[in-house]
Amino acid sequence: MEIVKERAGRRRALSCAAVSRAGLSESAVEISEKKPQANISPPTFQQAIQRLQEYWASMGCAVMQSSNTEVGAGTMNPATFLRVLGPEPWNVAYAEPSIRPDDSRYGENPNRVQRHTQFQVILKPDPGNSQELYLGSLAALGIDIKAHDVRFVEDNWESPVLGAWGLGWEAGSLPLTPVSVEITYGLERILMSLQGVDHFKKIQYAPGITYGELFLENEKEMSAYNMDLANVERIQKRFELYAEEAQDLLAQGLAIPAYDNVLKTSHAFNLLDARGAVGVTERARFFGRMRALARQCAQLWVETRERLNYPMGVWEESPALSHPSVDQKASQIDTPQTFVLEIGSEELPPQDVVSAVSQLEAAIPQFLKSRRLQHGRVSVDGTPRRLVVIAEDLAPRQDDEEKEMRGPPATKAFDKDGKPTKAAEGFCKRNNVTVEELVVKIDGKTEYVYAVVKEQSRPTLEVLAADLPEIISNLSFPKTMRWNSQVAYSRPLRWIVALFGDTLVPVSYAGVNSGHTSRVLRNASQPTIQVERAGEYVSSIQQAGIVLNMEERRESIWAKSSILAASINGCIPAEARGSLLDEVANLVESPAPLIGRFDPAFLTLPADVLTTVMRKHQRYFPVVSEATGQLLPAFIAVANGKIDEDVVRKGNEAVLRARYEDARFFYESDTSKKLADFRPLLKGITFQEKLGSMLDKSMRVEKMVRSLGLAMGLDESSIATAQEAAPLASADLATAMVMEFTNLAGIMGRHYASKEGYSSAVQEAVFESVLPRYADDILPHSDAGVLLAVADRLDSLVGLFAVGCQPTASADPFGMRRSAYGLVQALVENDKNLNLDKAVKIAADTLPMPVPESTLQEIDDGANVELVRSVLSERSSIPTLAARSVSQMEELAKGDVLSKIVAAYARPTRIVRGKEIDPSWQIDETYFEVEEEKALWDAYNQTAALLHEGVGVDVFFEASLKLVDPLEAFFDKVFVMADDERLRNNRLVLLKRVASLPKGIAELSMLPGF
Amino acid sequence: MEIVKERAGRRRALSCAAVSRAGLSESAVEISEKKPQANISPPTFQQAIQRLQEYWASMGCAVMQSSNTEVGAGTMNPATFLRVLGPEPWNVAYAEPSIRPDDSRYGENPNRVQRHTQFQVILKPDPGNSQELYLGSLAALGIDIKAHDVRFVEDNWESPVLGAWGLGWEAGSLPLTPVSVEITYGLERILMSLQGVDHFKKIQYAPGITYGELFLENEKEMSAYNMDLANVERIQKRFELYAEEAQDLLAQGLAIPAYDNVLKTSHAFNLLDARGAVGVTERARFFGRMRALARQCAQLWVETRERLNYPMGVWEESPALSHPSVDQKASQIDTPQTFVLEIGSEELPPQDVVSAVSQLEAAIPQFLKSRRLQHGRVSVDGTPRRLVVIAEDLAPRQDDEEKEMRGPPATKAFDKDGKPTKAAEGFCKRNNVTVEELVVKIDGKTEYVYAVVKEQSRPTLEVLAADLPEIISNLSFPKTMRWNSQVAYSRPLRWIVALFGDTLVPVSYAGVNSGHTSRVLRNASQPTIQVERAGEYVSSIQQAGIVLNMEERRESIWAKSSILAASINGCIPAEARGSLLDEVANLVESPAPLIGRFDPAFLTLPADVLTTVMRKHQRYFPVVSEATGQLLPAFIAVANGKIDEDVVRKGNEAVLRARYEDARFFYESDTSKKLADFRPLLKGITFQEKLGSMLDKSMRVEKMVRSLGLAMGLDESSIATAQEAAPLASADLATAMVMEFTNLAGIMGRHYASKEGYSSAVQEAVFESVLPRYADDILPHSDAGVLLAVADRLDSLVGLFAVGCQPTASADPFGMRRSAYGLVQALVENDKNLNLDKAVKIAADTLPMPVPESTLQEIDDGANVELVRSVLSERSSIPTLAARSVSQMEELAKGDVLSKIVAAYARPTRIVRGKEIDPSWQIDETYFEVEEEKALWDAYNQTAALLHEGVGVDVFFEASLKLVDPLEAFFDKVFVMADDERLRNNRLVLLKRVASLPKGIAELSMLPGF
Repeated sequence: MEIVKERAGRRRALSCAAVSRAGLSESAVEISEKKPQANISPPTFQQAIQRLQEYWASMGCAVMQSSNTEVGAGTMNPATFLRVLGPEPWNVAYAEPSIRPDDSRYGENPNRVQRHTQFQVILKPDPGNSQELYLGSLAALGIDIKAHDVRFVEDNWESPVLGAWGLGWEAGSLPLTPVSVEITYGLERILMSLQGVDHFKKIQYAPGITYGELFLENEKEMSAYNMDLANVERIQKRFELYAEEAQDLLAQGLAIPAYDNVLKTSHAFNLLDARGAVGVTERARFFGRMRALARQCAQLWVETRERLNYPMGVWEESPALSHPSVDQKASQIDTPQTFVLEIGSEELPPQDVVSAVSQLEAAIPQFLKSRRLQHGRVSVDGTPRRLVVIAEDLAPRQDDEEKEMRGPPATKAFDKDGKPTKAAEGFCKRNNVTVEELVVKIDGKTEYVYAVVKEQSRPTLEVLAADLPEIISNLSFPKTMRWNSQVAYSRPLRWIVALFGDTLVPVSYAGVNSGHTSRVLRNASQPTIQVERAGEYVSSIQQAGIVLNMEERRESIWAKSSILAASINGCIPAEARGSLLDEVANLVESPAPLIGRFDPAFLTLPADVLTTVMRKHQRYFPVVSEATGQLLPAFIAVANGKIDEDVVRKGNEAVLRARYEDARFFYESDTSKKLADFRPLLKGITFQEKLGSMLDKSMRVEKMVRSLGLAMGLDESSIATAQEAAPLASADLATAMVMEFTNLAGIMGRHYASKEGYSSAVQEAVFESVLPRYADDILPHSDAGVLLAVADRLDSLVGLFAVGCQPTASADPFGMRRSAYGLVQALVENDKNLNLDKAVKIAADTLPMPVPESTLQEIDDGANVELVRSVLSERSSIPTLAARSVSQMEELAKGDVLSKIVAAYARPTRIVRGKEIDPSWQIDETYFEVEEEKALWDAYNQTAALLHEGVGVDVFFEASLKLVDPLEAFFDKVFVMADDERLRNNRLVLLKRVASLPKGIAELSMLPGF
Repeated sequence: MEIVKERAGRRRALSCAAVSRAGLSESAVEISEKKPQANISPPTFQQAIQRLQEYWASMGCAVMQSSNTEVGAGTMNPATFLRVLGPEPWNVAYAEPSIRPDDSRYGENPNRVQRHTQFQVILKPDPGNSQELYLGSLAALGIDIKAHDVRFVEDNWESPVLGAWGLGWEAGSLPLTPVSVEITYGLERILMSLQGVDHFKKIQYAPGITYGELFLENEKEMSAYNMDLANVERIQKRFELYAEEAQDLLAQGLAIPAYDNVLKTSHAFNLLDARGAVGVTERARFFGRMRALARQCAQLWVETRERLNYPMGVWEESPALSHPSVDQKASQIDTPQTFVLEIGSEELPPQDVVSAVSQLEAAIPQFLKSRRLQHGRVSVDGTPRRLVVIAEDLAPRQDDEEKEMRGPPATKAFDKDGKPTKAAEGFCKRNNVTVEELVVKIDGKTEYVYAVVKEQSRPTLEVLAADLPEIISNLSFPKTMRWNSQVAYSRPLRWIVALFGDTLVPVSYAGVNSGHTSRVLRNASQPTIQVERAGEYVSSIQQAGIVLNMEERRESIWAKSSILAASINGCIPAEARGSLLDEVANLVESPAPLIGRFDPAFLTLPADVLTTVMRKHQRYFPVVSEATGQLLPAFIAVANGKIDEDVVRKGNEAVLRARYEDARFFYESDTSKKLADFRPLLKGITFQEKLGSMLDKSMRVEKMVRSLGLAMGLDESSIATAQEAAPLASADLATAMVMEFTNLAGIMGRHYASKEGYSSAVQEAVFESVLPRYADDILPHSDAGVLLAVADRLDSLVGLFAVGCQPTASADPFGMRRSAYGLVQALVENDKNLNLDKAVKIAADTLPMPVPESTLQEIDDGANVELVRSVLSERSSIPTLAARSVSQMEELAKGDVLSKIVAAYARPTRIVRGKEIDPSWQIDETYFEVEEEKALWDAYNQTAALLHEGVGVDVFFEASLKLVDPLEAFFDKVFVMADDERLRNNRLVLLKRVASLPKGIAELSMLPGF
């Protein structure tokens, strides 16, 4: 079971949410102490707030006060959460002390505090230049935005409580119309950076007063409260009281006080969470409850505002699309021209750059062809801020097209004298041809007149102007945003350059008009450039330092980074060349790798921890020693464009140091105890209300290890290993490191076990017990590991079923399908047999409640259905397919089709199992004795033709149904194990082929009836 | 029972607390719309905050954010409550949205909101010029402090929860060292005034956005929550949970999170209170609990800071007193001079001005005499800002004084030859006389030598310099403050002028050095003046427009106000010439009465309401029609000094309008129902946990009316009236008007009853049931009124005793002594007899719990003790005496002294009662037959000589003890009702005299054994 630790209001600050998830990369705001800004001195903390207030007030924001109730983030303040709903314009800014019990560090961690100060801005509707406004505010703070590597990075922030998420056109699970721009500053980090101090307590808060003097004691005491002393039972009661109060108030139609109580539930939940008193399944229940309340608050607020007739006025949507007319003269272009289309936007997520480029590569030639536009070379490129299509030698007009049009029958077209009738004349007129051009042809049995008609060829400019929007709107992304209209795109679209030669292609889309103006690097001396003609586009962009081609960026980054690594006798681990390099290459337009260092003292931390932080959190390349392969105290960060390298290096080093300080805090806290000592702490983590704590679960797993191992036919030594590993297996969930870096679950268990001298088999089993953690993850391979992994998942499945938490068609809140699939995968890939009935019984026996036989049967059946579902749907890594399958399987599992098909495949599988079959044997129809053999062979061939790896399960089932009758007939009439070796081989191979049809599509072997 | 409605954080803002309880009179900040400030335009709400932040930041304050938890006032924020404790300097400013559920008005009242914005400033230690800094901040806000009547008025603010109070050298019940200056602005009212709008919702919050657009809906919904929908049971549970959490955290040594929970209890309490769910006795319990927690938080915080070694540094106290040396040359003054002493301070409360002047009037001549300083006329005057002593023709030096000193015995002083011995020479040397000056005198049986010694006469200047501080420090006030040292004074002392002729008397006291500089009106063009010589003082001060003499101010105010009243054919009601005029005369130095109007529509409100608001809240004189005596829609306010009369009139009118809007809101809300309909609402007000709600109490009172009435010997018609009035009697406690203006309890009941047509007897009984409300209040006089008043108090006494809430020697949280005394007064003054045993039984019978006989006896005894206490201690209107008596009575009641004395007085009283006694009869000793008569007569005379009205009860008891034996002997030996008329008269008159000894000192007639 994977611990998902997404918490309410959990994201770090310094991000710019809602419309433009623009986060200032944390590296960006480092001000080198050696290079103080000439124009503006670093502000004190209170000056920073004052400056932001002044800046945003001057931009038309109302400056408000912070919330009266603890909030985890400024976005939870009703001035954001409620006000972003509905059509009323709203511009607001406020400082918000944000309370995150979870971030309690007793004041010891230099970068993390349980009360930090967010500065929150809401601009509604989107003013269209939110990134520029944001950069302006940084300048107001005294940040030299030219020297820094200011980055707007993807941050798919989500607040489960609020039902709000980072791409931001929902709040309280309601669509936002219009969408708001949300900007959030994490002031402590910004001020540390601006003032060049390395601990929050050293920040100058006011002249002569440090932040530590004001807040250090508060951090110490509130941390002790949040982490150690808050009375869990009382906080649980408070949660209940707030939730009930909120519910009552909703019933009374009062959104504001109801929402205030929702905020109180949220803080109570955060306290419980920090106290380690919320289990995985409890979390889901808590979130569900809070989200439902928040949604109702949002709905009620919207209704209230409507009833009040929108006192703040109503925003009017800008038209999504308009068709500017094409200048007459401009349409008289008569020679082929280069065409360039640049779609400029706020920073796209890396995978969206890749996907959009490949979509355009397919779409553009097709588009040009369909529009009968002759063209030369077509190239498509993409960077985070732009998608670029260049078509060379694009014809000035469409190709002519001749079409033969059929007119009336010849008998009706001409009179007896061969003179054209009125009918013929009408046909000619309609098609703009002369009677002389008509020809007569036979069609079937009748002669008709025909005319060759030239279709109107339009000027290319006109075609492009009319149809370019379609190209943009056809791009699809996994997650899209809206910002100022109903148009959805990966990120807000900010400019379009569309030139045909030197002529502007007039396009308007999502409120943006095409023009000659492109935007280059934000910190360039001239952040916009004019592109006079299409042919100049590439060189202009190159001159601005931007590398349009993704592959070029990849290679350049790799090459330069490798040189940097070599400069300290290191290299970058080869696996970084994969997804990490892909990602980094699409985070920058003008890659500027630089090497940074970290304190070698951090090397005492596990390498997994260090690299996890570098890769997952910072997108840095680790550097290992060329000689030993050991991690070196350095990293390579890739900045964007011309920056002050020293400033940016220091910034990145500071951020990494901050994260490593955190990690060290966790590691030291963890290693002050034994791994086994963490197990009792699992008691504080509820697994599920009725199923008890994670400790209870772990005890059950431990208890079933032996019988389950025997049922799986494992040897005593593996069972012994599993028994030794079992008490350690989930213990790391209670370690601070895993609480913080959830993806290190299992890994830290293995590390701590190894540190304490457990056998490598035990270490491995501890690690493997968590596998697989996600789709396409590695699977457990040691017998002890498989045993633990299966036991853990079995306990979840049977337990949750027993207490009535099975998933529905549309919801699987406890991730049972993934558990089921993991279980199956572990068994199948390791070729283990396990009788499901027996396994369910073993698991049921360890449950805290007696499970009556009837329920056991239900569990059995239900679990089977789930297994089916999982086998069939989780298999696919294509999400849409999986989603489709689930509901189909629901139907299937209910009827008898499934059992028929399972039975159909089961029998051949059983027959061929263990048989020696000549692998080279080819089926020979001449050896078929009876027609049932030929019938099955035909059916097989038909079915096989329809199936291939990756096909939908619906197709698989439909196709497989064709085998049912022939197979039945075959087994009725045919004795497989004929004495004649040729007959026998022919039959066995036929059955083997049938049996292997599901391979790569569905794993049926675990299903009942197989 | 009197409802005391002092609520947590209940005081309105715009006050300057702690050291200088300087409240800006609310009238002060009105900016006339016609006269915009030339220099600075009225700010928006957010600009006002910004300006205050900038101003106070520039004065060295850290600008912080508001609290994360609901607070009723900025002072509750830990940045004030905790930080004012201990020796660390602290300067801070912050805006604090303050939540007062009680002020919920659904957004309908133009001036009151349940969430208002305080701006809070703390300056620690006192910078010495806090009033000037405050005025500077007003100027920064754009207030023309010269045009306005800016006033610093007494505001004896108190937070029962915080254990903090307005004079401000305690917080959390701990002394503050140093004391902080606390300044609190109520921004909504200030901004309404600055912007000239008449409803909070019209305030411009930011350009283009009104306050109403931001907060009106919030007011509506939160009001509905606070007043109608907050679930009482849940909030009670929350209170418990917070209180328990706080207690645990205190045990863990964590002051900050503990205090956070205390704040949460406070908000929970405020919600309960707004929901009408807190009764009088419950309130006391709640407060007790919160105060205890707050005190522990404060103590713990202080300990924590000490343990941390005071990170913010340690303040050093300035010396309270120093003795500057007197200039040699200046001490050579040789002619009588005028002496002037001006003690300048922040604004003294009116009663302190009166008291200080009379203290000085007594002290100064005594002082001069004791210092042997000849002088002419001495005058003492006082205004809110200065106490002035002028002594004319003060001698330049002390009078000489000759003292006869006794030396050694003559036998030792001279040898046989009559020559002086060494002893004699030594004596002469010590006393600076020659041997020749020695004389011999007899003393008893021995002869001694004597010398007449001249005591050194010192220059006056030297004497004054040395001893003036003593004059100041001898002044005593009911409440004093500390500010920068251990010196206590009514308000902070800011300057001293002490001149002897043209010579400065060098004095230093409480950090202030005497000088020639005096301060005059703050809005004068020259707010300080130089006084070169004492003789010029009076004219200089007069020239500055200040009227030094209190009586002159009184008369001037009355005369001018009467003229103003006459200008609209009105006059000021005569009773205003009493305490109100006294008070107003001591609120100003330069009285400037002005007449203002209010909307005649308000005249539909009861006159009692209108005048209560004018007198008690605003210190305005009401104006009644000369013809009809009816209230006119006008008032007279007395401004201070030269102001812009239009501006100030408008300001005062706006404030009164605001208060009347409030009153109208309450009145309309009340009169939408019948008075009787409010009675069921008393159910929501707990009287005491075990004794149920106020409704239960009211039912008990109703139930006992008949039997109690019969026991008192009332006639049927009075009992019937009381029975009709009983259900109405406390009903008005649930009316909105009384909830707000608690002093109108009874008055509103009477008014609503009259409006509904009840008989005047019933109306009166409803009113009288609450009498007496305070010491020296009027008493009930109608039989029905007495009956209800007694029944109500009897229920409280017996009930609270029955549940174990009797007062202790030091604490009487339920005001039982006042109840007891009220009961006694009502009976005695109306000459009603009531058997206490029987009355207790009647009251006990109505209680919700059965009261066993034994308990009843205890109650009887206990109640008796309480009665004794009350009779003896509450009698006195001199508080110190009363306080002293209580503990003495405690002792007395325990022993048998009391019963002896009661018995002693009881018998004569019984004997003379109803007897016809010749009033003109003078006791004639010749008619005494036996010596016991003479003995009693002597004892009487001795006792009577010691007693007089106002004597202490201790003296009374001690003196009365002398009567016990003679009385016993008298009754043993003497037959009073002798046949001989002369003997009989002599004896009866003697007994009557004895019986009347307690008169005016103690009412013994209600005591057991009497």
